[in-house]
Amino acid sequence: MSAALTPHAGPGRFVAFEGPDASGKSTQIALLAARLRSDGVDVLVSREPGGTAVGARIRSLVLDHSDEGAVLSPRAEALLMAADRAQHVDEVIRPALEAGRTVLCDRYLGSSIAYQGVGRGLGAEPIERLSLWATEDLVPTITIVIRVPVEVSLERLAAQGSPDRLESLGAAFVRRVSAGYEQLLTRPATVGVSGIGSPDEVAERVWSALIDAGVLP
Amino acid sequence: MSAALTPHAGPGRFVAFEGPDASGKSTQIALLAARLRSDGVDVLVSREPGGTAVGARIRSLVLDHSDEGAVLSPRAEALLMAADRAQHVDEVIRPALEAGRTVLCDRYLGSSIAYQGVGRGLGAEPIERLSLWATEDLVPTITIVIRVPVEVSLERLAAQGSPDRLESLGAAFVRRVSAGYEQLLTRPATVGVSGIGSPDEVAERVWSALIDAGVLP
Repeated sequence: MSAALTPHAGPGRFVAFEGPDASGKSTQIALLAARLRSDGVDVLVSREPGGTAVGARIRSLVLDHSDEGAVLSPRAEALLMAADRAQHVDEVIRPALEAGRTVLCDRYLGSSIAYQGVGRGLGAEPIERLSLWATEDLVPTITIVIRVPVEVSLERLAAQGSPDRLESLGAAFVRRVSAGYEQLLTRPATVGVSGIGSPDEVAERVWSALIDAGVLP
Repeated sequence: MSAALTPHAGPGRFVAFEGPDASGKSTQIALLAARLRSDGVDVLVSREPGGTAVGARIRSLVLDHSDEGAVLSPRAEALLMAADRAQHVDEVIRPALEAGRTVLCDRYLGSSIAYQGVGRGLGAEPIERLSLWATEDLVPTITIVIRVPVEVSLERLAAQGSPDRLESLGAAFVRRVSAGYEQLLTRPATVGVSGIGSPDEVAERVWSALIDAGVLP
């Protein structure tokens, strides 16, 4: 673990949400943003990839490739994701934090570790190094991992009517990514929250986790 | 300098051409390719960025940004260039080398060092590390740097009717990049060739340099 890994301590707070496809991250982010705003907190919601104009082009480049079945090299994919993050931090996240805002981000470093590091087999360590260089060592104040058993994740993907997406990824890949998200739980400033139950139930767990971690007063 | 820096020794030969804008690289590559082919050598000519379909999209993303005056973060630019290189090596260069072909590439690692490392001030060392990771340590058999004094480079850019391009880059940036190319000459398996004179005169120098370096029989 790099000595540079100091979670962002202010100004502003940086909360990253991680978890597999269909784990409910975006619902949880919306619920948390609403609750924080009703408490008067200045919240910025963003996401990766695609949180900037450049990032949107990078995202469509990566997705087009997956969808066309063309082969994007794993390292090219990892570097594109890191480029998206570099631009996102520079243009969106860091300015918001410096203005004292609370940033909720749908996917960040953890997703790169789970997808490119573990899923694509490039290794967590080089992917982390890449991301730390891309962001000049910006590490979230806290990372919330929404945990769902991989069988639930597979069922939800199928129920969402995304058999093509699932098929193109492959169940074996989805399992590796799921294991990658579980590995995140050993990292500092990272908390796992069960994604099983109603959105409100999960939201209560997220809220408690943020209080327990001292991120919310 | 990384211990991984072992120039590619075969099969195939990998010749990278580096040098500032308007140094005459592409003319020299065309002349060398023609001469090698007339000797029966199986030559592949390619370039960076943009030597693959993905790379072409990355290239236009970077250029659009420059042209629109929008701010692409220096690290995002460096990571996009590394992504382009990763895909190019994986899809084009390595398969050609493994088939025993001679690859002539217009820009490679050296241009990243000159532009992003020195020009953008990110440092040669991190840019080199990024590129070695992107390419799984593929280093050219030899790198030919076409050298032109920076004043000539500035004059040629102006004469090419590219005042906008020059203006958008800024003369100070062009000077830093030029200095970056000069720094390449201290690297292993790297040879400088004067770009002053007629294309045929320069081509003779390139040919001699390749023979002297033992790259041509």
